[in-house]
Amino acid sequence: MVRTTRQWQLSALGPGNLAQGTAEVVSPVGSEVLVRTEAVSLNYRDKLVVETGMGLALRFPFVPASDMAGVVEAVGPQASRFKVGDRVISTFSPMWIDGKPLGNARTPPYRALGGASPGVLSEMVTFPEDWFSHAPETLDAAEASTLPCAGLTAWFALIEQGKLQAGERVLIKGTGGVAMFGLAIAKAYGAEVFVTSSSAAKLTRAKALGADHLLMREGWVETVLEITGDDGIDHVLDLAGGEGFAQSLAAVAVGGRISVIGVLEGFDLSGPAGLLLLKSPVVQGIGVGHRRALEDFVRAIDAKGLKPVIDRRYGFDAVPDAFAHLDRGPFGKVVITF
Amino acid sequence: MVRTTRQWQLSALGPGNLAQGTAEVVSPVGSEVLVRTEAVSLNYRDKLVVETGMGLALRFPFVPASDMAGVVEAVGPQASRFKVGDRVISTFSPMWIDGKPLGNARTPPYRALGGASPGVLSEMVTFPEDWFSHAPETLDAAEASTLPCAGLTAWFALIEQGKLQAGERVLIKGTGGVAMFGLAIAKAYGAEVFVTSSSAAKLTRAKALGADHLLMREGWVETVLEITGDDGIDHVLDLAGGEGFAQSLAAVAVGGRISVIGVLEGFDLSGPAGLLLLKSPVVQGIGVGHRRALEDFVRAIDAKGLKPVIDRRYGFDAVPDAFAHLDRGPFGKVVITF
Amino acid sequence: MVRTTRQWQLSALGPGNLAQGTAEVVSPVGSEVLVRTEAVSLNYRDKLVVETGMGLALRFPFVPASDMAGVVEAVGPQASRFKVGDRVISTFSPMWIDGKPLGNARTPPYRALGGASPGVLSEMVTFPEDWFSHAPETLDAAEASTLPCAGLTAWFALIEQGKLQAGERVLIKGTGGVAMFGLAIAKAYGAEVFVTSSSAAKLTRAKALGADHLLMREGWVETVLEITGDDGIDHVLDLAGGEGFAQSLAAVAVGGRISVIGVLEGFDLSGPAGLLLLKSPVVQGIGVGHRRALEDFVRAIDAKGLKPVIDRRYGFDAVPDAFAHLDRGPFGKVVITF
Amino acid sequence: MVRTTRQWQLSALGPGNLAQGTAEVVSPVGSEVLVRTEAVSLNYRDKLVVETGMGLALRFPFVPASDMAGVVEAVGPQASRFKVGDRVISTFSPMWIDGKPLGNARTPPYRALGGASPGVLSEMVTFPEDWFSHAPETLDAAEASTLPCAGLTAWFALIEQGKLQAGERVLIKGTGGVAMFGLAIAKAYGAEVFVTSSSAAKLTRAKALGADHLLMREGWVETVLEITGDDGIDHVLDLAGGEGFAQSLAAVAVGGRISVIGVLEGFDLSGPAGLLLLKSPVVQGIGVGHRRALEDFVRAIDAKGLKPVIDRRYGFDAVPDAFAHLDRGPFGKVVITF
Repeated sequence: MVRTTRQWQLSALGPGNLAQGTAEVVSPVGSEVLVRTEAVSLNYRDKLVVETGMGLALRFPFVPASDMAGVVEAVGPQASRFKVGDRVISTFSPMWIDGKPLGNARTPPYRALGGASPGVLSEMVTFPEDWFSHAPETLDAAEASTLPCAGLTAWFALIEQGKLQAGERVLIKGTGGVAMFGLAIAKAYGAEVFVTSSSAAKLTRAKALGADHLLMREGWVETVLEITGDDGIDHVLDLAGGEGFAQSLAAVAVGGRISVIGVLEGFDLSGPAGLLLLKSPVVQGIGVGHRRALEDFVRAIDAKGLKPVIDRRYGFDAVPDAFAHLDRGPFGKVVITF
Repeated sequence: MVRTTRQWQLSALGPGNLAQGTAEVVSPVGSEVLVRTEAVSLNYRDKLVVETGMGLALRFPFVPASDMAGVVEAVGPQASRFKVGDRVISTFSPMWIDGKPLGNARTPPYRALGGASPGVLSEMVTFPEDWFSHAPETLDAAEASTLPCAGLTAWFALIEQGKLQAGERVLIKGTGGVAMFGLAIAKAYGAEVFVTSSSAAKLTRAKALGADHLLMREGWVETVLEITGDDGIDHVLDLAGGEGFAQSLAAVAVGGRISVIGVLEGFDLSGPAGLLLLKSPVVQGIGVGHRRALEDFVRAIDAKGLKPVIDRRYGFDAVPDAFAHLDRGPFGKVVITF
Repeated sequence: MVRTTRQWQLSALGPGNLAQGTAEVVSPVGSEVLVRTEAVSLNYRDKLVVETGMGLALRFPFVPASDMAGVVEAVGPQASRFKVGDRVISTFSPMWIDGKPLGNARTPPYRALGGASPGVLSEMVTFPEDWFSHAPETLDAAEASTLPCAGLTAWFALIEQGKLQAGERVLIKGTGGVAMFGLAIAKAYGAEVFVTSSSAAKLTRAKALGADHLLMREGWVETVLEITGDDGIDHVLDLAGGEGFAQSLAAVAVGGRISVIGVLEGFDLSGPAGLLLLKSPVVQGIGVGHRRALEDFVRAIDAKGLKPVIDRRYGFDAVPDAFAHLDRGPFGKVVITF
Repeated sequence: MVRTTRQWQLSALGPGNLAQGTAEVVSPVGSEVLVRTEAVSLNYRDKLVVETGMGLALRFPFVPASDMAGVVEAVGPQASRFKVGDRVISTFSPMWIDGKPLGNARTPPYRALGGASPGVLSEMVTFPEDWFSHAPETLDAAEASTLPCAGLTAWFALIEQGKLQAGERVLIKGTGGVAMFGLAIAKAYGAEVFVTSSSAAKLTRAKALGADHLLMREGWVETVLEITGDDGIDHVLDLAGGEGFAQSLAAVAVGGRISVIGVLEGFDLSGPAGLLLLKSPVVQGIGVGHRRALEDFVRAIDAKGLKPVIDRRYGFDAVPDAFAHLDRGPFGKVVITF
């Protein structure tokens, strides 16, 4: 008898074409594992894929979303990394294990789940075991589901690439999912954290989470220079892009770092070359990160008791509401629980 | 009796105010050394300082230029790094010995000779010994004078920061002083080198110096992708800035590096953030470099027999002609010999 | 009228030749500063210098010790980094500002205060301003005096060189001054910390300071492998040297790091090369560190509220008792307050 | 009809049990490829495996050796990296693609071909495509077969880990396979190379290959210090281990690097800790390297025209003679051609 699973399927591009459906549960072969999904967290990218396809060759019915937490239900005969009952999370870039990113200059690496690879908004998924990591012991499934994209992006920028040290200064633009992970990681490391937002209410919430300095969007560069005695910011998480990059260059410390993070469409980076030359910061785009760093991050979460910030949890039937929430600028993450 | 030295002095901003004059030779005290100048190489920045002051608080009469080679004539009682007769070259950023750059976020480090610090277009100079390095044994004074700014910039970008490996691909924009040092260093390391120029004649000269691929300015990104089998460029020396940065992002390899180099005024950096995120290259402005790297570079020059490219040598009396040459886009460096 | 200062002076090698004396207070010239000492912390090296001279060409009367905290009383006309009233600490290696260590292969860098350079066990000292850093705001003078050697050594090993990440495992051998700084830093970073000792009492004290796992000296390698699920230790602070190095190689994780720290005399490092090849850890001797890292460390102390562990504070007249304490294996640091 | 391949098989431990035999050719499934072997190069480790098993759980009949070059004859349906006719070389550590080494602290990573994984002394082999890299275009099969272990070890030590710069000083102990690769790589990078040997004849051959300084085994440390003006060696390739490590510590520059390379059995590393602390070199065991670095190395070979040093080529039937050659200390590599 064929076993089936419920899932959200896109029959064609456009949010109106997203609906619940069923699919056959695939038995794991080789080194595949069958995982029962407990939670999926959404990224703004998921919304863009549903709406525009982002230039990817999607196969319909298409299952969206990349980030999930679940429990291993069955393992293929050659699987060696997991056993039945293990709590796991997905990886965003399924083939990138460690070291240099994949892809080439013409076709950069963007083989994420819920895009070039299958998605996870499904009660059961069968994937190669290499596409999963162990979940942290100290997080529930909803919290754990936020790590693969938003969490790892902040960790990869600040720690794997940025080698953040205690006592350094971090500036975070905004209060979305990556931003609030950045805040949590930076505070856990003993950084002095500056958060910018256009919303006083969101700044107040960021303060409750440990932000040291709150900056309204106007004129914040001068404020940063004054607070830091002109030393500036060691690490900018530039989540806005566009014109804001010029402000990042004005605020960054000599020899500092600007991590550029964001959705992939619709904006240019622009700023004065003179400041780039004189201060010689490293500017680096962050395209999420590799599985080894995700494993490091999971270990750090358990060691430090880091907690993801979840703005709201939705039930499986409320997926359209969850997508709509993404447009309203969530404070932290939006999660579907199964 | 007071000993005097000839020098070029600026009495006020503006090229019309540059004239030969004399100054007293200062006896070295403490750890200063007195150096007899044999050659000075000019940078486009020297021209900007003469014309505009570049926002610096110059004291008139002002002596321009930062890069020189000479011979130690006398040493102060506490000098320990040099002795009389040593062949030396100046350092561009006199206080930056090793490690992180100096200065702060509001006032970035720009204390170069011939600017915030005194200049070298003088037959005799008396400076702290820390402002000098030993000259390479295998270069004459004119060649050695080209190292402190243009040479070190290329070395710092490709080697000190870029850790260039044999077999990597390097793209160099243009054929000026830094560019032709980049070509020489990259070829000495066994890189495959691409050079862009709008001048076919200059490309022909670059080919004679070892350039593997010559690219006219139009449509070169597609050519690069074809030649490299879509792998792209591991290291871009972006000497043009401005719109060209978008092309650098299109041509750079996944996980590659773009070193932004250039004059400090008059242009913005601009390019699509999507490519920056997906390829995750390191983008770094290069503000010349520290003395320890200059010492490494000098050692490499002697080991590999690297030769700077000098477009033309002028006599001491022809300084105005040499400055005028800067406007015509020299192929390599312009040098004054004393 | 000549102003004098009390100090401890060594008239000849040997602890019996250490006595209180006086010296003239030197007015600061150039970029020197005159500092009133408030506290001095002792290192085992200070004892060795007093007893054996450690091969250094000491000039008698010789003032021992390298680590102090104090207040600036006067500044020379060219001093720019400090003003009267600033709270400062000394640097251990006075000429090493940033980047590569000084010295050469035959004569390694060991120009520390209280050795090749003058010592600090004096109520007033006059040194170049480059030999000082600002003290942390959150430590008293006795606490601050422990940073220049023991504190910076632990920071340099774990953070500047080791790039410690939250969630990594750190093993610390012993409970002396460097060890207890290593514990504090590692816990502040969210590491899982293992401490070894032959004293159950000291292990109990280490546990109170946050150590996660306590290891008696016998058979600890197997215990570590069991606790870590065979993953081993990411960062070993090898403070014992000698045969213990073989145990460090057995316990270290694949691709981990072993920092070798200790006094400079009397032992060889020895261990099986096979483990070094197969696990490929970085093994690095730590010779304290540079001033830029000390400044980073000071900033981290204030940000994280780190507190040095002081075993006992002695008065100025009790210096011989403090030296004797070093032989008994202090738990943390021994400090003289003025 | 079953197709068979000739191969050298070990029926039980001991060189007397090595004999020619046949095996069935396995058709590639999944992402496997079938490769026709053209050359195999031997390492001393292969001899140890045949004689002692090196503690590995070998399955008999066992096929020895790890390093081969050949041509792809067939590809499995999911293979994507190679096509029929591609010239390939094997990788030594088949699962290590990039980044951190595999394995754990108790069971370090040693899953090499011709050991924990199957060997290559066979006319046809069928392996996962991930176990191969493209061969360089500029080498014949015998030359290409020397890269996976000896060649990559030298490259990994000097370039991937060591970031060798032109003008630096490299000291190489001995004239075996890794050593002569080290010489070729170091000279290609513009290093000044010192070679030690107990054989004047071998030193003469090393000089012909570009060695700058030849050192007989006695008293070479003092010679090195004299030649280098006391600066010492930036990078030591320590291929001898044991007592020689103390000499490496004496010769290494401040802040330099010692790469420890060698067979895995039978010796301890031993040296004075004082020099390790004062000079603070990085000491790192090199366990060959990952596939991404092998790909970089292949690219560098083609770019620089590097040629492996082959002491002698043997035919397929002369495998026992080739093994015997390993005991006589070959100058460079010993290769079997098919």
